[in-house]
Amino acid sequence: MAITHATGYAIVDPKNYLDFQLTKYELEPLEDDRVTVAVEACGVCGSDHHTISGGWGPFETKFVVPGHEVIGKVIEVGAKVTEFKVGDRVGVGAQVGCCGKCRSCKGPNENYCLQPVHGYNTHWYDGHEHQGGYSTHVRAQERFTFHIPESLESVDAASMLCAGITVFSPLVRNGAGPGKKVGVVGLGGLGHYAVLFGTALGAEVTVFSRTDAKKEDALKMGAKQFIATADPNFHKDLALEFDLIIVTASSNQIPVNELLSCLDVEKKLVFVGLPDEGLNITPQTLTGNGAAFASSHLGNKPTIQRMLALAAEKRVKPWVEILHMKDAAKAIKAVKDSSVRYRSILIQDIEA
Amino acid sequence: MAITHATGYAIVDPKNYLDFQLTKYELEPLEDDRVTVAVEACGVCGSDHHTISGGWGPFETKFVVPGHEVIGKVIEVGAKVTEFKVGDRVGVGAQVGCCGKCRSCKGPNENYCLQPVHGYNTHWYDGHEHQGGYSTHVRAQERFTFHIPESLESVDAASMLCAGITVFSPLVRNGAGPGKKVGVVGLGGLGHYAVLFGTALGAEVTVFSRTDAKKEDALKMGAKQFIATADPNFHKDLALEFDLIIVTASSNQIPVNELLSCLDVEKKLVFVGLPDEGLNITPQTLTGNGAAFASSHLGNKPTIQRMLALAAEKRVKPWVEILHMKDAAKAIKAVKDSSVRYRSILIQDIEA
Repeated sequence: MAITHATGYAIVDPKNYLDFQLTKYELEPLEDDRVTVAVEACGVCGSDHHTISGGWGPFETKFVVPGHEVIGKVIEVGAKVTEFKVGDRVGVGAQVGCCGKCRSCKGPNENYCLQPVHGYNTHWYDGHEHQGGYSTHVRAQERFTFHIPESLESVDAASMLCAGITVFSPLVRNGAGPGKKVGVVGLGGLGHYAVLFGTALGAEVTVFSRTDAKKEDALKMGAKQFIATADPNFHKDLALEFDLIIVTASSNQIPVNELLSCLDVEKKLVFVGLPDEGLNITPQTLTGNGAAFASSHLGNKPTIQRMLALAAEKRVKPWVEILHMKDAAKAIKAVKDSSVRYRSILIQDIEA
Repeated sequence: MAITHATGYAIVDPKNYLDFQLTKYELEPLEDDRVTVAVEACGVCGSDHHTISGGWGPFETKFVVPGHEVIGKVIEVGAKVTEFKVGDRVGVGAQVGCCGKCRSCKGPNENYCLQPVHGYNTHWYDGHEHQGGYSTHVRAQERFTFHIPESLESVDAASMLCAGITVFSPLVRNGAGPGKKVGVVGLGGLGHYAVLFGTALGAEVTVFSRTDAKKEDALKMGAKQFIATADPNFHKDLALEFDLIIVTASSNQIPVNELLSCLDVEKKLVFVGLPDEGLNITPQTLTGNGAAFASSHLGNKPTIQRMLALAAEKRVKPWVEILHMKDAAKAIKAVKDSSVRYRSILIQDIEA
């Protein structure tokens, strides 16, 4: 008999987005291609704050249980699931389903499905609501469920499923490795992973941040160089220096044209921070080196498995602060204030 | 005894930018790595209009002889020139020199030199002025001089040196070929070359234009499909369809976000039109397919030689209108009015 309900920390009104209410709700059905995961730990993402505070629009569901960096145990598998069995330790990230029909899904790009089912505050194709991982249970398609290598601790693996892959995918898709220079703009949850994974891949990483405040942390994480962009001439000696720049700052105030000039010929600046306003780009800026302004969304399954394997092999250890789920409001506040160093992980405290 | 002077059609005052004056002026020295070319034909580029009318700023030189799509005969070679001999038919494009010292020049990307010497209205590193091809003679570094295949007529080859390579380089750098779908936005001098070369490379080309006015021409050039973007829903059925989109329209009013949605995962929109104002790009627009907004500048020597060889092999024939150099004002007016179909070529009429 399949599990029918989960209990989670829910926000009902975006105006009171720190007022988490322990709430019992019906889970979506266990379809043939889905697994049920009993949550052990869940990371706290900037998206969680944006969504529950209404910054990205009104709620899609009647309340929102956030959380899309989930680690837990498989406790049920759908009839056609082949990759997982009950008892497996797995991860579930910021996408739990795809249409399976569009060009992206038919190819190896399910993370670019035209109609993705996101990690919470969303509906499945049949109208059932889906909620997230500040809870006892989540369900996800097998394609969006990932084996976790044994040597990775759950609290370390959790935030790799969103923050980690968001920067790991553009790193590997753009050839980060030995002999390559990677710039990372902004040192928050995403930025710190870009330094850790960029270094683990063998690239030489430079962190760009507004001030020197996080310099010591950046160097400890493995960065070879730290550049404060508050100096308006910061880019003057960096023309054609970088093979890739990843912008993790969620602001349209970053000096994007100056950063673009630091790229080698026909390389990319990948903007994974998502400011609400757009950026003004003049094609002329891009003409000097044929640079590209790009973005990226999560990563496909092979890339996620590759990231987890690399993390296990190179002992990549994220800088995380561990709290109990009942302290979700505290964690959200730390995201809002940018005081978290560098990711909060909530561990399970709800009695099943 | 080296030639010392050229005679060309010069503009003295951007306010009177149609008032060409036949003017004799001193040529830059014939350095060891330069060749002197006796001009036979010269294409008329949109840049010529922008520059002589002051649209891109005040003149850099005391007068401007435009023209950077030159075909002619080598009549002198510098002491260290190895690729050319007197009598060779050659082309010279929109760049005539590079520093030879920056990362781009040391690599194979001299078209992205940090201190390029452009085709006219510019100075060499030693301060000597350089003027363009609406004239009897131009000088250029050997690296920016190109052999013209025998079967290409001079009036056909001329505009390939700027308009042609501006679109050919992004086509080949982004894999245009059999089985690939390429979108071309805008059908002017650049756009018509993108259709011709995209088709010659074996790609399936779709032209996007505001209205249906140029549909017949586009199909005659080889386009398989023509889409009028005046219909606000033009992009609705095109999600993930294109492997590359080249924007040749020089306007910031093109529906860039809608066009970006038509790209397949992690593909590029290459903007080679250069509107004076920037475009507002939201990273969110790029997240759905991981698309990139890029630009491109000319092409390196191997790519230019490849273009010319392909043009000869596939008999690529640009649509050109042929005038005498004394009718330069008429040609500039046709560029300004967008009435030229699709490139004007000026042939030599100055008595040496």
